[in-house]
Amino acid sequence: MSQTSYVIGHQQPDTDTIISAIAHARLKQAQGEDVVAARAGELNPETQFVLERWDVEEPTLLEDATDEQLLLVDHNEHSQTVEGARDADVVEIIDHHRIGDVETSNPIRFRNEPVGSTATILTGLYDEADVEIDEQTAGLLLSGLLSDTVVLRSPTTTETDEVVAERLAEIAGVDYEEYGKELLKQKSKLGEKEPRE
Amino acid sequence: MSQTSYVIGHQQPDTDTIISAIAHARLKQAQGEDVVAARAGELNPETQFVLERWDVEEPTLLEDATDEQLLLVDHNEHSQTVEGARDADVVEIIDHHRIGDVETSNPIRFRNEPVGSTATILTGLYDEADVEIDEQTAGLLLSGLLSDTVVLRSPTTTETDEVVAERLAEIAGVDYEEYGKELLKQKSKLGEKEPRE
Ligand SMILES: [Mn+2]
Ligand SMILES: [Mn+2]
Ligand SMILES: [Mn+2]
Ligand SMILES: [Mn+2]
Repeated sequence: MSQTSYVIGHQQPDTDTIISAIAHARLKQAQGEDVVAARAGELNPETQFVLERWDVEEPTLLEDATDEQLLLVDHNEHSQTVEGARDADVVEIIDHHRIGDVETSNPIRFRNEPVGSTATILTGLYDEADVEIDEQTAGLLLSGLLSDTVVLRSPTTTETDEVVAERLAEIAGVDYEEYGKELLKQKSKLGEKEPRE
Repeated sequence: MSQTSYVIGHQQPDTDTIISAIAHARLKQAQGEDVVAARAGELNPETQFVLERWDVEEPTLLEDATDEQLLLVDHNEHSQTVEGARDADVVEIIDHHRIGDVETSNPIRFRNEPVGSTATILTGLYDEADVEIDEQTAGLLLSGLLSDTVVLRSPTTTETDEVVAERLAEIAGVDYEEYGKELLKQKSKLGEKEPRE
């Protein structure tokens, strides 16, 4: 790729979408590719907490993707894509939802797995590429996984999610039940902030 | 899955489509799933030669897929699916083409890779699942790979295809250049048969 590409999740981004953009961009960068993490909207309070907790900058806001190269994470349908995505070149998709309506002109990598989070799939892609997951990246991936699966309690949670969560928690140096509770607390605490402010 | 599922390739099946249905059904069966190989049309002469060469029965002809469970291989667009596929339940897709218009209601596994054949991807899935590829299955997979890539000479051929072809040839006990020539010869020989008969 000669042009900078953007890894980007869905509109009204959640934690899994944002950390997937960051973690997948890091993986691509480690493989020598010119890829940056982007977002299609404002961060929610939970995600803000996660980025502060792991001391990571928020991805670039991409307002219009027309003519850009995109790697889509955590979605694969145009009702959720960033503005301009229909006129962009989608070069890769990593997701865990139903198969949607994004089509491409050329063959690309599309990895969709019926697991609890995109973070779960990305952890596997680091392994496949033999790229080490550092403490910070593990913290991010774990946050996406625990957020989407409501700390492994959602009906979408699979055995793979459980195995991956334990491993990420170990690398990140946290207890995932404890950290998960903190995440959920932030969600509800910050949820009630708005009316007060 | 309580219902028998069908692994099926595109209409006007080619060698990669047929051997992918057979090889993927075998992989699923090895994992204890109730899955059979199917086809959406008549075999071409090259594919007939391949099945005879490796002593393998042709997949079941599926005339109408309405209400069936399908694992699609070697295609992912409805212009190429078996009759009735729009009213079937697509539960998995393994392919190497552009992303097409097949949508699903639920999250499923969709593996699309920009490589020379579906056989190449399936070889990787055997490894991931830690299922051994026997001599016969290797012969089938090699045939799909060599057919789609014109013995590794098509512009769609990747490094992965080359590595996989060498490995499959070793397991199958053939020289892939020699076997590839035989395949191409069959293709042209059998192609001119029709007017004579
Ligand atoms: Mn999401
Ligand atoms: Mn998600
Ligand atoms: Mn084909
Ligand atoms: Mn093919």
